[in-house]
Amino acid sequence: MDLSLFHILEILGTIAFAISGALSAMNRRLDLFGIFIIAFVTSIGGGTLRDVLMGNTPVTWMENIIYIYLIGIVTTIAIIFRNKLYIFKKSLFLFDTIGLGVFTITGVEVGVQNDLNPIISVALGAMTGTFGGVIRDILCNEIPVIFRKEVIYATACLIGGVAFVILDRLGVKLDIIYITTSMTVILIRLVAVKYQISLPTFYLIRK
Amino acid sequence: MDLSLFHILEILGTIAFAISGALSAMNRRLDLFGIFIIAFVTSIGGGTLRDVLMGNTPVTWMENIIYIYLIGIVTTIAIIFRNKLYIFKKSLFLFDTIGLGVFTITGVEVGVQNDLNPIISVALGAMTGTFGGVIRDILCNEIPVIFRKEVIYATACLIGGVAFVILDRLGVKLDIIYITTSMTVILIRLVAVKYQISLPTFYLIRK
Amino acid sequence: MDLSLFHILEILGTIAFAISGALSAMNRRLDLFGIFIIAFVTSIGGGTLRDVLMGNTPVTWMENIIYIYLIGIVTTIAIIFRNKLYIFKKSLFLFDTIGLGVFTITGVEVGVQNDLNPIISVALGAMTGTFGGVIRDILCNEIPVIFRKEVIYATACLIGGVAFVILDRLGVKLDIIYITTSMTVILIRLVAVKYQISLPTFYLIRK
Repeated sequence: MDLSLFHILEILGTIAFAISGALSAMNRRLDLFGIFIIAFVTSIGGGTLRDVLMGNTPVTWMENIIYIYLIGIVTTIAIIFRNKLYIFKKSLFLFDTIGLGVFTITGVEVGVQNDLNPIISVALGAMTGTFGGVIRDILCNEIPVIFRKEVIYATACLIGGVAFVILDRLGVKLDIIYITTSMTVILIRLVAVKYQISLPTFYLIRK
Repeated sequence: MDLSLFHILEILGTIAFAISGALSAMNRRLDLFGIFIIAFVTSIGGGTLRDVLMGNTPVTWMENIIYIYLIGIVTTIAIIFRNKLYIFKKSLFLFDTIGLGVFTITGVEVGVQNDLNPIISVALGAMTGTFGGVIRDILCNEIPVIFRKEVIYATACLIGGVAFVILDRLGVKLDIIYITTSMTVILIRLVAVKYQISLPTFYLIRK
Repeated sequence: MDLSLFHILEILGTIAFAISGALSAMNRRLDLFGIFIIAFVTSIGGGTLRDVLMGNTPVTWMENIIYIYLIGIVTTIAIIFRNKLYIFKKSLFLFDTIGLGVFTITGVEVGVQNDLNPIISVALGAMTGTFGGVIRDILCNEIPVIFRKEVIYATACLIGGVAFVILDRLGVKLDIIYITTSMTVILIRLVAVKYQISLPTFYLIRK
């Protein structure tokens, strides 16, 4: 088990997030430019926000150009085969979940490496995993889907992040932590979707 | 009169902003995760935007973790007692106004300490005081309430900010400036609400 | 031909973007504070986002205060003469197009000067030219107009940016590159509007 597996998962996640952004933009009937922008933002928005808040600038995608190419190619393919994508619906859902797990763990790791408070590290993980989708929804003029009553999503990130911090304190090897904690996020999300587990909402009684 | 009074006011402001965010999220029927995110953003969003634009990173709340705990506890309490909060409506309004005054002054001070142009310092103050609410409204898919016709809010920040810059030029002691200028913001806001003073709107005559 | 021409164009662009923001805010019936904020954001939002992502902080307008004065004065005039502005509709459209061209080129140049990948430089250019309008639309609670089916806008920025990168590689003098590439953006936009050329949209067939 080595880090290259983690990188493969990261690539699958990037692909899935880009496709999810492109589909969302096409659903909204945005034009070609809008589709590419939303695909990029969904894929790299969470990590970009984390980098900006951390002061890690220029942000990652400006210096690690490979993800830009990847998102560009994937989005082009998604546009061409837009009416066939439902065939891959299950694979896409799986990839999206993989992306959630992997992006979360890269986010937690940035916090841990910078010796930030464990709570902040966990928050950075959840931000990296989920805020691409939040920015996508804001640009599409919707209340971010993960804030509404919904099957558990961000909660899986938080649990995976806590697991990362604990295993790191216990001195577990980093590549084992990567795989086990990203799998934790992925499994929680898969189970939550299968059994439709969601967080409670708390609304106000109107007077 | 010493700075600890200012810190107490800052804590009251943080509490009030967090509760205002949590209430706004519950009104929108967001789930538990959404409620916490909106509470955090409302409370720390203005200062975070200021830090990012200034290049003061990692942003304050990543290194001064105490506010994260405070907001977490306050939001939990706000959720539990969500249908009793109307009892504290007046206190909450007062705390919110205190938050506006205190956050504004901390923002102005950052600009002054960094020798920025006085206009920029005043702008940073208004941004710190009001943009938590702006980001809250954007995440809740509303036009930010402070941009619409409304009882004076941001204007109070601007006046308090100008007062800060002038008193600082006159060589007044910093802790006295803190208290007098934050009180200026608070009093203007209280008077404006009592007498329903609002800024004019200027709309276009349709042709 | 020297750089002062470019600065004159930059000033015209700033004016046009500020007026476009102020008009948008008045159309939405925002109050005086809202009008100024939207005017500022439209004018400086693209460059600010670029600065933040690059780590070029404090962002430009905090240290180069002249644009703040300019936008403040222009917005005041736009409010006073709000019902006469239609007389200048054609000039405003021309200024806005000039702004698009000039802001794009300043953005590309920042990327080139920092030795970033050419694709990133072009992206920074398009971001600087168009994201002021994107943030304006988000604050006004609309899907950004440049993402919807529309006459070519961002595409002109991308072509101008590519031209910049190529001419720079060929060793053309920088002031000549400035003028020719900003003119390229401007001309493409003018031609696109005249002939109503737009990008395709790709929507999904509902099942």
